[in-house]
Amino acid sequence: MLCAQHRAPIIPYGAGSSVEGSTLATEGGIAIDMSRMNRIKQLHHEDQDVVVEAGVTRLQLAEALAQSALFFSVDPGADATIGGMASTRASGTNTVRYGTIRENVLALEVLLADGSLIRTGSRARKSSSGYDLTRLFIGAEGTLGLITELTVRLHPRPQAISAAVCSFPTLRAAIETASTLLQEGLRVARVELLDAAAVEAVNRHSSMEHDVAPTLFFEFHGSAATVQERAQEAERCAGRFGGSSFRWSANEKEREQLWHARHNAYYAIRALNEAAIAVSTDICVPISSLADCIDETVEDRERSGLTAPLVGHVGDGNVHFIVLAAGESERAAAAAFHERLVERALRYDGTCSGEHGIGIGKRKFMRAEHGDAVEVMRRLKRELDPQGIFNPGKLLPED
Amino acid sequence: MLCAQHRAPIIPYGAGSSVEGSTLATEGGIAIDMSRMNRIKQLHHEDQDVVVEAGVTRLQLAEALAQSALFFSVDPGADATIGGMASTRASGTNTVRYGTIRENVLALEVLLADGSLIRTGSRARKSSSGYDLTRLFIGAEGTLGLITELTVRLHPRPQAISAAVCSFPTLRAAIETASTLLQEGLRVARVELLDAAAVEAVNRHSSMEHDVAPTLFFEFHGSAATVQERAQEAERCAGRFGGSSFRWSANEKEREQLWHARHNAYYAIRALNEAAIAVSTDICVPISSLADCIDETVEDRERSGLTAPLVGHVGDGNVHFIVLAAGESERAAAAAFHERLVERALRYDGTCSGEHGIGIGKRKFMRAEHGDAVEVMRRLKRELDPQGIFNPGKLLPED
Repeated sequence: MLCAQHRAPIIPYGAGSSVEGSTLATEGGIAIDMSRMNRIKQLHHEDQDVVVEAGVTRLQLAEALAQSALFFSVDPGADATIGGMASTRASGTNTVRYGTIRENVLALEVLLADGSLIRTGSRARKSSSGYDLTRLFIGAEGTLGLITELTVRLHPRPQAISAAVCSFPTLRAAIETASTLLQEGLRVARVELLDAAAVEAVNRHSSMEHDVAPTLFFEFHGSAATVQERAQEAERCAGRFGGSSFRWSANEKEREQLWHARHNAYYAIRALNEAAIAVSTDICVPISSLADCIDETVEDRERSGLTAPLVGHVGDGNVHFIVLAAGESERAAAAAFHERLVERALRYDGTCSGEHGIGIGKRKFMRAEHGDAVEVMRRLKRELDPQGIFNPGKLLPED
Repeated sequence: MLCAQHRAPIIPYGAGSSVEGSTLATEGGIAIDMSRMNRIKQLHHEDQDVVVEAGVTRLQLAEALAQSALFFSVDPGADATIGGMASTRASGTNTVRYGTIRENVLALEVLLADGSLIRTGSRARKSSSGYDLTRLFIGAEGTLGLITELTVRLHPRPQAISAAVCSFPTLRAAIETASTLLQEGLRVARVELLDAAAVEAVNRHSSMEHDVAPTLFFEFHGSAATVQERAQEAERCAGRFGGSSFRWSANEKEREQLWHARHNAYYAIRALNEAAIAVSTDICVPISSLADCIDETVEDRERSGLTAPLVGHVGDGNVHFIVLAAGESERAAAAAFHERLVERALRYDGTCSGEHGIGIGKRKFMRAEHGDAVEVMRRLKRELDPQGIFNPGKLLPED
């Protein structure tokens, strides 16, 4: 409307936790602060869904559900807004069990460039009625329209939860453990990988004393009996690959400390060198290629002399090397390292971004990853936003 | 290409199992028989995915996986092609546990109107790289492009499976049982509802002797201990709502018979009146509204004097009243009954189609269900298929 008349860019701004610059006003325009659209509108216990305005944050929703038997599963670590999480197709630590935000949104309300407000779905659990507009706007990073409201799925809080930590002689052994568990159909709620450097950073930052070695953080959800059965099976499996015995965090407080430390791994790593910027890479590959892809990248890291600890959602094949770079030559080395990492991921039939989105930083990889499909994306953008007012300069590569 | 030059409609034809006329050449043109694009191209055990040509059928894939530890979960009953299932966003009996086809496709290869062939994703388990073209073509019923190849997820075959049948005094009691189990987080792999009329038809058609009453068919997947625990809990829960004790089908043969009978319910119902056509309705509503929606519809059915047994995927809130109509006045009554059913589903914030698609038959409901979002769908269609050669006359309402 007004913005369209004046061709003023509209950049939605949620919690500002994007790591790819999705919320930067690179071409000027109006940053729309979504933080006051923070009403939790309808909670449907029996249907296990909730309708929220786009500016509601993850922790705000968690608090609102604290007394309920339900929880919202998508957990990217940061206290992002639900609208922002949908816009970047976010996921996080428990995706292996509960899916990404894509699988957890039932419907959106979206403001379009012509000023119309559409609803993209109903509260039905599934539908085969018409084009999947919900999924079109999820991951579009605000470039096709402005998400104003979301209906998201909730999940029953598990009866029992237990978490465990296990260290391994090599990264490959840790990855093979995770892969084997998944192949055997063992349901883990979380299985997170940290390399020795990341464990060391976390120990230092969160005053913990984990073995400085490649490590898996596990979490199991289910009935008390199921959780115990799964955890024992996972421990046996880890043992086959040389894993240590499990160190348990059965009570809630210890568990919270563990995941708090894991969530803060990014900050722990950044704290290793306050003068450096952090380049947060985000490749995702088929799990059968993950060990090779990581081994090659670790070699590359050593050759490059870069500090780049590894954390990742190993069950999804999604890992982040967080590259610290101080000064111009290290920044250039970090950028080159990132490019080689993405090339490697694409060679293994993976993606340049598992969960962070494209934003500004990864536009240059879009053509290599998507080929001619980029043209289809461009056409969708032109059709839905002919004047290019929605978050310009993001996601799509330059012409 | 040739078809575009001559504006000749392209209608993909898979197994012909669409119940909404999605494969009819209503405007002439070329029906492309996909049945010889039936190669299973790459099976990745460790990654739990398989690359198939679009004409591979469900049972063909099941047979190819018979010796593997993996299975393909999407099961609409019919021996549909995988491409057809993607095009109609199909689901079926075990969606409550494994998701619809939407959650089980990693990537597509799609032929576009300009003759280009794109790939919409990688084999990575998740990605936040670019617009979700995969989901755009899933459910598009061949109106935006022709799906030629799919990379689909597989699941580890459960260690143990057990199935049980339980009858209830009322439909509401059966629905409340299913809803309560889901709220309590109890994982069922299948929970199917049949009303007394459907049970009677199934008994007759498959020579079975189930109690002629509202009935749930359950299936549980997991480890032996988990399956037993879940089944006991489900039986206890059913008891609270007046359900009978469970009749078990623990061995594979009995289980196959049970599900074969359930899958054939449609044919069993049709066999009640060979002279009649069957109008296969397909609404899906939030589960909290399902009992009300069904009760009102049962009253309507009685007032209308129609034969319309009920079968449904109660865990998803998706039910089919299969209306038998012989002669013109019954057909008119069936059409009016269907319209009232859809109105009711939309009033309860549901959808006119849970899993069958829109095809021809439900185009008239699109505006009521989607409002202005239909315009967005139209614009996507015009942009991707400007000459309207892909499956014209389907999915979108008439102007």
